[in-house]
Amino acid sequence: MRLGIGDDAAVWKPSPGKLQVITVDEATEGTDFRRSTSSLEDAGWRALAASLSDVAAMGGRPLLAVVSLTIPRDLDEQGVVALYRGMNELARRHRVTIAGGDLSRGAILSLGVTAVGEVRPSNLKRRDGGLPGDVVAVTGPLGASRAGLAILDGQVDPAALDPVLVARAVEAHRRPVPRVEAGHALGGSREVRALMDLSDGLAADLPRLAAASGVAAVVEEAALPIDAACRAVALAMGVAPARLALEGGDDLELLCAVRGRAFEHLAERVRARVGRPLLRVGRLEAGDSVTLERAGERHPLDVSGWEALRP
Amino acid sequence: MRLGIGDDAAVWKPSPGKLQVITVDEATEGTDFRRSTSSLEDAGWRALAASLSDVAAMGGRPLLAVVSLTIPRDLDEQGVVALYRGMNELARRHRVTIAGGDLSRGAILSLGVTAVGEVRPSNLKRRDGGLPGDVVAVTGPLGASRAGLAILDGQVDPAALDPVLVARAVEAHRRPVPRVEAGHALGGSREVRALMDLSDGLAADLPRLAAASGVAAVVEEAALPIDAACRAVALAMGVAPARLALEGGDDLELLCAVRGRAFEHLAERVRARVGRPLLRVGRLEAGDSVTLERAGERHPLDVSGWEALRP
Repeated sequence: MRLGIGDDAAVWKPSPGKLQVITVDEATEGTDFRRSTSSLEDAGWRALAASLSDVAAMGGRPLLAVVSLTIPRDLDEQGVVALYRGMNELARRHRVTIAGGDLSRGAILSLGVTAVGEVRPSNLKRRDGGLPGDVVAVTGPLGASRAGLAILDGQVDPAALDPVLVARAVEAHRRPVPRVEAGHALGGSREVRALMDLSDGLAADLPRLAAASGVAAVVEEAALPIDAACRAVALAMGVAPARLALEGGDDLELLCAVRGRAFEHLAERVRARVGRPLLRVGRLEAGDSVTLERAGERHPLDVSGWEALRP
Repeated sequence: MRLGIGDDAAVWKPSPGKLQVITVDEATEGTDFRRSTSSLEDAGWRALAASLSDVAAMGGRPLLAVVSLTIPRDLDEQGVVALYRGMNELARRHRVTIAGGDLSRGAILSLGVTAVGEVRPSNLKRRDGGLPGDVVAVTGPLGASRAGLAILDGQVDPAALDPVLVARAVEAHRRPVPRVEAGHALGGSREVRALMDLSDGLAADLPRLAAASGVAAVVEEAALPIDAACRAVALAMGVAPARLALEGGDDLELLCAVRGRAFEHLAERVRARVGRPLLRVGRLEAGDSVTLERAGERHPLDVSGWEALRP
């Protein structure tokens, strides 16, 4: 960073030969978070995490972020400091500079976080390169953040659950970790043909990857990596664990399409390099449907398909 | 732009050897604008204009912008389209790409606009380089936006004013023009030692330039370039025109400190190159005060100083 906060704009020197990527994430109180289930530190962390995740989902590394805030009357300077504390904790982890911000008063708390990153041109990953025969995979088990929200929201009684799982689920919801190192590793592989992040859940995001790539996608229910806390919470709620895992947003795992024959080797390499698994969730095929495969039968990957998932 | 809206992030290729600049501006309904005095198109234009102006104030040229929006219930898709229409009108003028956006629902309308631009390292201008003896100048007459707000707000009766001036003042308020070409020209001159934009009015912004540069500043009232509409509106309001011009924000003129002996020559060159004047408003001196000089006497540049400006 050549010049940070305090002038009209912040200044950085891009690495020679690299492309720059930019993304913005808006988080508004009441819609994207509630202060009853997220502290201000958490709200700051989550908003920045969503933006860093988008940079990782291009195969890039985040460099800096700028923040626009609307602050309600019941939030004092301490509150703003708390928001920035949460953002700074995450920023430090990934050596990201919070390079600027602007603030205004308004009825509700709202954060707009813009993140900028860099990527080598050959590492740039889009969501439209998937091909029939590709394995669809994610960088970790699904549904922990959704389970944490159910606990914080009082949808389940945490006393009836394993406290270790409860703590992990709550942490996953409050402090989701963007898969920055995994994104960089996946960006570096030619076998990765499409990449995006999971912000709205696999059931919403996989159709986007499939549509952009012009292919069909099949989720293999038997393969689905369901987080243990998600499984426990789903059972306590009387919902199929697979449904909670598929519908739950905010996991910030990366979703990729990998050339089928290269998948096993790539998964080993990613685990060795960045300590994250690459877990198969399904495959791409010719066509334009997105379906859930269970015991050889196919169901639509939506509300009508959930019937098949009755526990 | 390599890749625009539709993937996880937008991608651009920076020009070799150039620095990148980034800035964010937050505009919230009720605080920064009202729908009673600004259309949605105007609100979009103004929010982008403020960000582009900050890039110009670094000596840079804007390349792209991303937008975070909070949309209240009474705003439908047409309303969002109108906001973007206003932004796009201004973006096209300056060949800026709106490269991405994110949107959430909330109680009030709020726009966060991040702009990115480029600048040659030797052209980068900060606000901290002013020296005693420098001429302080602006790129146009002051106070038109403030006059427009007074008219739209019903603080004066427009029927009593010259309709040409009324139209110009209202336009200045609704559609402020960021001084992108002037910023680029001033960035290219070694004689310009400090540069920033006027978003909060000269009375608020000049002290920032002076403090950053570690010098004193004197505003010469006799020299003040007061917009004709501002003068007419001030007289109708019973306020000193100079006060309205000094206090009025949102003009988006650039404020610079120029080596004294080079000023006349630079002003000629800027006018020839970009068709904007460079108008002297005062000078920098050793010290740390910021004062208003009237008839040889000095007054503080604040509310207590306004007493000297009684019409």
